[in-house]
Amino acid sequence: MSDVRDGVDAARKPRVVIVGGGFGGLSAAKALAKAPFDITLIDRTNHHLFQPLLYQVATAGLSPADIAAPIRHVLNDQRNLKVMLGEVSGVDLARKEVITDDRRVAYDHMVIATGARHAYFGHDDWAAVAPGLKTLDDATAVRRRILLAFERAETEADADERARLLTFVVIGGGPTGVEMAGAIAELAKRALASDFRSIDPRSARIILVEAADRVLTPFDETLSAAARRSLEQLGVEVRLGSAVTDCSDDGVRLGGTFIPTRTIIWAAGVMASPAGRWLGAETDRAGRVRVRGDLSVPGHPEVFVIGDTAAVIDEDGAPLPGVAPVAKQQGQYVAQALIARQGGRTVPAFRYRDYGSLATIGRSRAVAQFGKLKVSGLPAWLLWTVAHIYYLIGFRNRFVVALNWAWSYLTFERGSRLITGPAPRPGEQRQDQHQDQRHGLQSKAS
Amino acid sequence: MSDVRDGVDAARKPRVVIVGGGFGGLSAAKALAKAPFDITLIDRTNHHLFQPLLYQVATAGLSPADIAAPIRHVLNDQRNLKVMLGEVSGVDLARKEVITDDRRVAYDHMVIATGARHAYFGHDDWAAVAPGLKTLDDATAVRRRILLAFERAETEADADERARLLTFVVIGGGPTGVEMAGAIAELAKRALASDFRSIDPRSARIILVEAADRVLTPFDETLSAAARRSLEQLGVEVRLGSAVTDCSDDGVRLGGTFIPTRTIIWAAGVMASPAGRWLGAETDRAGRVRVRGDLSVPGHPEVFVIGDTAAVIDEDGAPLPGVAPVAKQQGQYVAQALIARQGGRTVPAFRYRDYGSLATIGRSRAVAQFGKLKVSGLPAWLLWTVAHIYYLIGFRNRFVVALNWAWSYLTFERGSRLITGPAPRPGEQRQDQHQDQRHGLQSKAS
Repeated sequence: MSDVRDGVDAARKPRVVIVGGGFGGLSAAKALAKAPFDITLIDRTNHHLFQPLLYQVATAGLSPADIAAPIRHVLNDQRNLKVMLGEVSGVDLARKEVITDDRRVAYDHMVIATGARHAYFGHDDWAAVAPGLKTLDDATAVRRRILLAFERAETEADADERARLLTFVVIGGGPTGVEMAGAIAELAKRALASDFRSIDPRSARIILVEAADRVLTPFDETLSAAARRSLEQLGVEVRLGSAVTDCSDDGVRLGGTFIPTRTIIWAAGVMASPAGRWLGAETDRAGRVRVRGDLSVPGHPEVFVIGDTAAVIDEDGAPLPGVAPVAKQQGQYVAQALIARQGGRTVPAFRYRDYGSLATIGRSRAVAQFGKLKVSGLPAWLLWTVAHIYYLIGFRNRFVVALNWAWSYLTFERGSRLITGPAPRPGEQRQDQHQDQRHGLQSKAS
Repeated sequence: MSDVRDGVDAARKPRVVIVGGGFGGLSAAKALAKAPFDITLIDRTNHHLFQPLLYQVATAGLSPADIAAPIRHVLNDQRNLKVMLGEVSGVDLARKEVITDDRRVAYDHMVIATGARHAYFGHDDWAAVAPGLKTLDDATAVRRRILLAFERAETEADADERARLLTFVVIGGGPTGVEMAGAIAELAKRALASDFRSIDPRSARIILVEAADRVLTPFDETLSAAARRSLEQLGVEVRLGSAVTDCSDDGVRLGGTFIPTRTIIWAAGVMASPAGRWLGAETDRAGRVRVRGDLSVPGHPEVFVIGDTAAVIDEDGAPLPGVAPVAKQQGQYVAQALIARQGGRTVPAFRYRDYGSLATIGRSRAVAQFGKLKVSGLPAWLLWTVAHIYYLIGFRNRFVVALNWAWSYLTFERGSRLITGPAPRPGEQRQDQHQDQRHGLQSKAS
């Protein structure tokens, strides 16, 4: 490898600090495995999270440990790298230091991959009643709410309140919202069906609310229609063209319509981590940093921003979506750019290769789009299952998840129906509020 | 079955309320599956917990869902029974009603199986710094503490503080303490060994403190000695004849000796649930209700107390231990007694059949005692493994746990090394304190 080290001071390898251990940060770290750098990866949790399956934890299909792997362990044979648990609060661009809660970490190059957090479009007070889904703690909190709603309905004497408890509203018809609505429907109509005495969980109403005129807008219209049909077959009510005007303890208001419910799940929008503020950089409306073609920050070629925190425009002028493949490819690109720079070379601007999109609705139901090829139903679902198990970090997790799914598929059971965590009582919403305030709209991963 | 229903009012079946879904409550409920009663089982959690494996969750070997099953689901085909999520706060003996946080539940017969909680012998302030292990939330909190200690040590510049962070003190040399100490040693010396850069996890000190002159006092002395040797082979320091005189944020005091540590785990004593207070009944020093030979409360033949909440003396005059087999046999006994009573018959006093005791120390290390037969080492460990998997609730859990163990055995990995939950920062202890205050020394299960 010494051929790429020209110009490097042999006494000290250049320091690369990667902030965030999500898909972007981890792929950058791995792609630098054999490069002559001294790398520090900082994350505010100890685990890499496979976010695309978070909805399975929220709906009791999987355990947190099934979709998360300790970052330290994933990278433990990479001797040029150390992992640090810490919360980044800023960057000192002049001194080239990352500022965490209890120290400063010097860098020669920095890669910011701090992701995004759900956003409420100026209605931050909705966070307390309409939790979103970005972290493991979010997922177990949502799981607790959903399962407790059934428990409370079981002992509720008042018919109106019982109906309210058995109504679940998912806001946002993107992939996460569609997956959540489908999974709640399957939980209610299958896994819980025979476990109660006073209520029939199959009578639960699951309502998916979307402001646009179709679900899964990034997909082709025929697939949006197929997804909607699949949702309706599962018993989900799909309300299109419906913008949420208020969320409260009592329900959701859609303009003139009010839906009484005790359980609202937010899947309607995200806001990038506050990296733009740390850098004093220009951001778009979703808080994403406008980066150059090589993903560096204008005026700071030593600072790269990737993944959900970066605003990158593709050839058609559309911003790249906040999905794992974009973050992964950007992480690999930045690693290559750094290696090239050390060799005095440059690389062409980043270009995203779109290998296709997948979204699942439920058991045997999914949609997939690969360029002009469109698939729905069982073939798409099998593709989705294979792809997600394949991409799960670590052989063991793949194996456990595959087994769990096989088991659920055969038996309709859910293995992780636990209500855990503080205060599983009506006072709970206040608890969640604190959590949401603590997480705020800050960096997801750092 | 109508032959046992003589004397029963056909219009209304007698109501049996079971408080607690642990080993005792669940076995009573199951043994009444075909009996002509109208049964309500009340628990304050939604899951039955396989407590003997809680230490595996605390040391990142298993996920919460692996050792817990929704009570509703376990009993879902028992049509004479309904499950209610609720926290019992008292009993109205005159009106025959159980009082929960939001309602009263009438009974004709009641079975109290509310378990025990760890106790600090008058030092309740130790709860904040020396958490115990009775619930899933306890276990994930202890896991967070142990894993965070290594994370903090990795970035700690001060050598004394680093040593303090890498010292783990387990208080109490009973089965739980021995299992915890052995499991922490294996975690540090195997699973984490190669994941850090600044520290060597293998240098961690694990200290087991016991006031008596041997560990595992319920076992034969030769097995206590074998267990001690096994612990020492794993690198655990065993301090016998050492009574704890103080626990603080900084460490543990044993009379004249002070052990600096940031992680203390309490496995030294338990206190029964407050059922004695609910009933105004006579209790022993550990808060257990002194019951009659048929496990009913003196003066109240309609109220039974079983499991860790009951004080039952065996033929030798010794109190029965607070273990799962005692609770299970008592649950079955009470069910038989109730069925007999309905038929106008009586049953002889409860007698515990001791089929033997098992305790594990670590990989391939355990002790077992069946009457005069004593086994240690690999054969005992295999026995322990088979027995624990066999008794796990539900086929799926057995299967997942068996796989997890096989995997860990072959690879030395730990699958559940997640730091989750609120405030994984130094402020965390305050959080745990709130939790402990909330749980208090109240009923474990109701």
